[in-house]
Amino acid sequence: MSDKPTQKNRGRYNNPVANQNFDDNVEDLPEYETFEDDFKPRGFGPADGSLTVHKVDMLQESNMPVHFTYAFDIGSLVVRRGQQFMMQVTFDREPAPSDDFQVEFLIGTDPSASKGSLMVVTFGQRKGGPWAGEVLERRGETLVLGVTPTANAIVGKFRTYVAVVVPHGIQRTKRNTKTDMYLLFNPWCQEDAVFLGNEAERHEYVLNDSGNIYQGSLDSVVNRDWMYGQFELGVLDACIHILDASRMPITDRGNVITVVRKGSAMINSQDDSGVLVGNWSDDYSLGQSPTSWTGSTKILLQYANTGVSVSFAQCWVFAGVFNTFLRALGIPSRVVTNFNSAHDNTGNLKTDLIFKEDGSPDIRNTRDSIWNYHCWNEIWCTRKDLPAGFGGWQVVDATPQETSDGHYRCGPASLKAIKEGVLCHPYDAGFVFAEVNSDVVFHKRDRYGTLTPYRVETALIGLAVYTKGLGGEHPVDVTFNYKYPEGSPQDEATMKQAEEYGCARDHSEIPDNPLTVSLHAERVLLGDDVSLQVSFTYSGPGEREVKVHLEGSVVFYTGVTASRFKNHQFTVTAPGGQTVTEVIRIPGQEYFPHLGSQVSLKFIVSGKSEDHTVTAIKVINLLTPRLTVQLSGRSRVRHMMYMTVSFTNPFNFSLGNVYMAMEGPGMMSYRMRYYSIIEPQGSISWTEAFRPRLMGNRTLVAVMDCNNLRQVMGVAHVSITA
Amino acid sequence: MSDKPTQKNRGRYNNPVANQNFDDNVEDLPEYETFEDDFKPRGFGPADGSLTVHKVDMLQESNMPVHFTYAFDIGSLVVRRGQQFMMQVTFDREPAPSDDFQVEFLIGTDPSASKGSLMVVTFGQRKGGPWAGEVLERRGETLVLGVTPTANAIVGKFRTYVAVVVPHGIQRTKRNTKTDMYLLFNPWCQEDAVFLGNEAERHEYVLNDSGNIYQGSLDSVVNRDWMYGQFELGVLDACIHILDASRMPITDRGNVITVVRKGSAMINSQDDSGVLVGNWSDDYSLGQSPTSWTGSTKILLQYANTGVSVSFAQCWVFAGVFNTFLRALGIPSRVVTNFNSAHDNTGNLKTDLIFKEDGSPDIRNTRDSIWNYHCWNEIWCTRKDLPAGFGGWQVVDATPQETSDGHYRCGPASLKAIKEGVLCHPYDAGFVFAEVNSDVVFHKRDRYGTLTPYRVETALIGLAVYTKGLGGEHPVDVTFNYKYPEGSPQDEATMKQAEEYGCARDHSEIPDNPLTVSLHAERVLLGDDVSLQVSFTYSGPGEREVKVHLEGSVVFYTGVTASRFKNHQFTVTAPGGQTVTEVIRIPGQEYFPHLGSQVSLKFIVSGKSEDHTVTAIKVINLLTPRLTVQLSGRSRVRHMMYMTVSFTNPFNFSLGNVYMAMEGPGMMSYRMRYYSIIEPQGSISWTEAFRPRLMGNRTLVAVMDCNNLRQVMGVAHVSITA
Repeated sequence: MSDKPTQKNRGRYNNPVANQNFDDNVEDLPEYETFEDDFKPRGFGPADGSLTVHKVDMLQESNMPVHFTYAFDIGSLVVRRGQQFMMQVTFDREPAPSDDFQVEFLIGTDPSASKGSLMVVTFGQRKGGPWAGEVLERRGETLVLGVTPTANAIVGKFRTYVAVVVPHGIQRTKRNTKTDMYLLFNPWCQEDAVFLGNEAERHEYVLNDSGNIYQGSLDSVVNRDWMYGQFELGVLDACIHILDASRMPITDRGNVITVVRKGSAMINSQDDSGVLVGNWSDDYSLGQSPTSWTGSTKILLQYANTGVSVSFAQCWVFAGVFNTFLRALGIPSRVVTNFNSAHDNTGNLKTDLIFKEDGSPDIRNTRDSIWNYHCWNEIWCTRKDLPAGFGGWQVVDATPQETSDGHYRCGPASLKAIKEGVLCHPYDAGFVFAEVNSDVVFHKRDRYGTLTPYRVETALIGLAVYTKGLGGEHPVDVTFNYKYPEGSPQDEATMKQAEEYGCARDHSEIPDNPLTVSLHAERVLLGDDVSLQVSFTYSGPGEREVKVHLEGSVVFYTGVTASRFKNHQFTVTAPGGQTVTEVIRIPGQEYFPHLGSQVSLKFIVSGKSEDHTVTAIKVINLLTPRLTVQLSGRSRVRHMMYMTVSFTNPFNFSLGNVYMAMEGPGMMSYRMRYYSIIEPQGSISWTEAFRPRLMGNRTLVAVMDCNNLRQVMGVAHVSITA
Repeated sequence: MSDKPTQKNRGRYNNPVANQNFDDNVEDLPEYETFEDDFKPRGFGPADGSLTVHKVDMLQESNMPVHFTYAFDIGSLVVRRGQQFMMQVTFDREPAPSDDFQVEFLIGTDPSASKGSLMVVTFGQRKGGPWAGEVLERRGETLVLGVTPTANAIVGKFRTYVAVVVPHGIQRTKRNTKTDMYLLFNPWCQEDAVFLGNEAERHEYVLNDSGNIYQGSLDSVVNRDWMYGQFELGVLDACIHILDASRMPITDRGNVITVVRKGSAMINSQDDSGVLVGNWSDDYSLGQSPTSWTGSTKILLQYANTGVSVSFAQCWVFAGVFNTFLRALGIPSRVVTNFNSAHDNTGNLKTDLIFKEDGSPDIRNTRDSIWNYHCWNEIWCTRKDLPAGFGGWQVVDATPQETSDGHYRCGPASLKAIKEGVLCHPYDAGFVFAEVNSDVVFHKRDRYGTLTPYRVETALIGLAVYTKGLGGEHPVDVTFNYKYPEGSPQDEATMKQAEEYGCARDHSEIPDNPLTVSLHAERVLLGDDVSLQVSFTYSGPGEREVKVHLEGSVVFYTGVTASRFKNHQFTVTAPGGQTVTEVIRIPGQEYFPHLGSQVSLKFIVSGKSEDHTVTAIKVINLLTPRLTVQLSGRSRVRHMMYMTVSFTNPFNFSLGNVYMAMEGPGMMSYRMRYYSIIEPQGSISWTEAFRPRLMGNRTLVAVMDCNNLRQVMGVAHVSITA
């Protein structure tokens, strides 16, 4: 990352570039500083009768509710920039009008007034730095001071000193960690780049510490409750630690664009030993499986405590943990899910699927895949670095990709730019545009290796983008933020615009095809039989005999085949102007042994008549059993409560090496339990006691995970009163 | 960098992402491939009487002159994309009209027709891939074929196969490294993104394998001859190796923007174990000093052969090696030098210099520095990713910086965007804009730590940008490509535009100052006395007594102080409306012991009258002695010639551990010699024999380097005939 302050760079910088917020080896200003140009007194130290500071109180209880930071489980003051906070200074005597003092806020290893990391605040006529100070109240020897950090101040943990001007110098308070102050982004402040005007939105996107992440496919959406836990003990420190681990210069940490871009790089472990190790396989034996997490807190605390990347994650884990990082620092953010997401197609707008001459999928020669879904984050901010009109929601993505920029990070990319196809601005707008807008090009590969496109599907990718609704548990469709309706004049204008910025599309002349095929299946419980309807419609004259090839596979959510279980050929006669449907029954035992830990089945059907080829694809997400969650006890702050999770194995096979976990932000910290085996039809029940810390509507979640059954969850909601 | 194809990603990609051009473990198409849908013959292999390939000749001698690649010292064919090349295929008999064959070009570990890494070229009615093929000549069993790669094809080393269609399949030639083909960018091709219309420019910026890099300061420019050597043995392979080492996906390697951005990251070793290790110090004991290199070839070959980053570099070494990489691949490029370059001032337009109340420099509190000069590269290409009007020269910089994007790379940034202040497009335009446009803000720091700006210099940074002139040895001023004249209406519009994109400037109200100061000194030989003229002008009424503080230091070229040798105070009386000049003589022996290996002296003078403070800064580059270089022998290709380098130590001290090196691209490969000591007034002379490989005007350079004397060079020019 950043240059380490080695001898090698001694001729490079006047001082090493400061990039650590948490470093105990800081050398702050001296406790007594003699004025250089002054008459030098014989002894050091203040003269008799100088004002002396007895006590500094950061007034957490008064400040934090009005800064919307009261939920933090933390010992120090946490406030938001661009908004006044109070502090109380008690001197040895009542300050006289002739007494002069100032308050100094320092951050990082090399505080500097010209770099915004050393802020001098004055309270009288004398000029200070850019943070405003005023005396709010005088009570004898005690003053209540108001300090207003600028709305673009550096975000992080500041050290606080009170400095009194004495006859020949300055006398400072000693370093006292109790007066440390965390400064955060401020969505409540109009001058802040993250200002968000709507109170309900601020409560959801900054203050809500639990949420819903949507998975599965558009016609069978699966809700995963995710505990963000941004206010839990140690989480804010862990988020600042991430920036320290990235060696991000302190002086950049007031810029939301820079912070989120760095965050998107650091949440994944590639390049930079970041937070989470990606793993797209069925083997998680070297860590915890991506499906086993209940939320972000365990991951962030483990990373901060060990300094080692945490195993393992897939997209929703990256997005969930990134969301905690963002909300902890005060950046409005949400997790969204794009159904049918195009990936890794560096800069062009084509997802190429290749088929053999007989119509069957040519897996050997197909490189692209369509993810059933992909989760990323949106943040809300202005874009001062861009022309007007590109502020608002921005896409950021921490899942490691093959980005065009060659590093594992993505965004912020303006949603308005994506919607209009204006892809000429930073960062990675073209990549996100392709994820929601790619065309799927079906190629036939001839025996000589030459590809000929025979079908282009423009509406298959980016079927819909979902996010959690305000306050509720249900998804809302935010696709309109990403694109105009398919086929509308605005949509065409957008695609044309995108092509002008180099997004290559396929413009092959595809002949009209009178033969079409579609697939339909109801969702079933994992293990049950699947009933697949294959329908051919032939709109031409006469009738056509169609040779049909049906392939069934278990797939990863990335669309990649895990195991093929069906390869079936049959013939259908399609009469002109009619639809003919074949129903194919796939017994549970046919796919079940192939599942591993996956829950998605993919069917590809190809039909070939004398003169036409057609193809359809259908992904089915199998339903998994649920955990039963029950709460008891008085729903009051600091009163004892109990949570009981129970489960009965509905299958005729044993579940082995079963992990169960539960947590609820503001209620109960992460807890885990292990069961070596759960027999067929066997039941387990687990009860934990806890005392709620925070009031209001709260969520607790439980997850069960084992090698042959994943995605088993349960949730409880409760309202806690004072 | 890129995901390694581990088990962890098996559910992520259909195939591992191909990112290696040089990998011997490739599995190309089978030598005999049966048509899958065909009747399967009992035995394998072609039927009797099928056409058989006897010989494939890539016709290097005919192709390379018309592709401007004849200078490459390489065994294989090197051609440029978007332009036809010929190849000759000899069969066992004259091909009949019914015979069918194709030529296949494969690149990388996982060639794929849909990704542009497997190109099928056909020569008849049958449809092939996007590269055009035609039969140019039929001579019995021998055909001369013309192949035209598309103008956006992947750049790198392709494997060539001829495939004959036999009754039940395809019969291919065996892998033969002699038929490998290197495909490069093509500045001669109108459809190529790197098209450059002017022939003289193409010869300079693509074909010239030596050049000049300017150092020093604007009033004492130092020329360093740099041997790019892009056509020397092994250099092209080393450049492709760099992309392999970066794990850049093969499929991205046809995009000039992606290639140069990756290159700018890989030329420095940070993040990615790239080519060169930066070292800004006086201690190079763990490697070769940045001043000791004669050119790029030794560095690139050492990196490719060892896989280990090469020690050490400063900006001109990064720029010189990057230029070789770019020209080798066919991207028009040049090295430029920005005099008074602002650095590391993340995203704002202020270089803050801080002074004490008495007017002396406050080094402890100053974080920014002004580099005497900084070298980077410009490349020429279209910008399809941006709106119209931003093509042409683009800045790329391989010197590791604290970029806003947090990684050690910079650009491509459009010069037109920089000139107009349109900083909203990728990549890093704001950073480059600040390097040439920053204001220097002089702050006075009061005794309480508060800063007050007292002077803003808008014309000190980016004094001029120089590059080597076409064909000649002299610098040309290309500042007009970067900015409008200081103070012009267009300049003001540009600065305003830049501020709209978030580039913060200082708008403090600075009172008019009737007192001014300037510094002047003639350039002198290292060790000679310096005569410094300090002139005060007071335009107000009456006269002013000025307390003057003069500080003299040895500085790195980065402006950072290496050692202070003078701290002098005196008083001057400035009468109203007049200029008063003091001449201060600094004897050689006063600064000499402080020099180390530096050659720049920096003087800062501050004057303080009752009511005004003024400051001036002057950097002097000391002249170093030259090497004498003489050539003898017949100046003809492949005839023996001799180069003699001689040097006499002009100093009254010994030079110890002296390294001498010489090279001349197309003439003599890199040679080095070591002298343990050169006594005062002692002489050395070294002669090497060589045989010129290439015709035309050629350059040879020699460099001498030791701990207490650097920057000693000599050069010879010669015209070689056939």
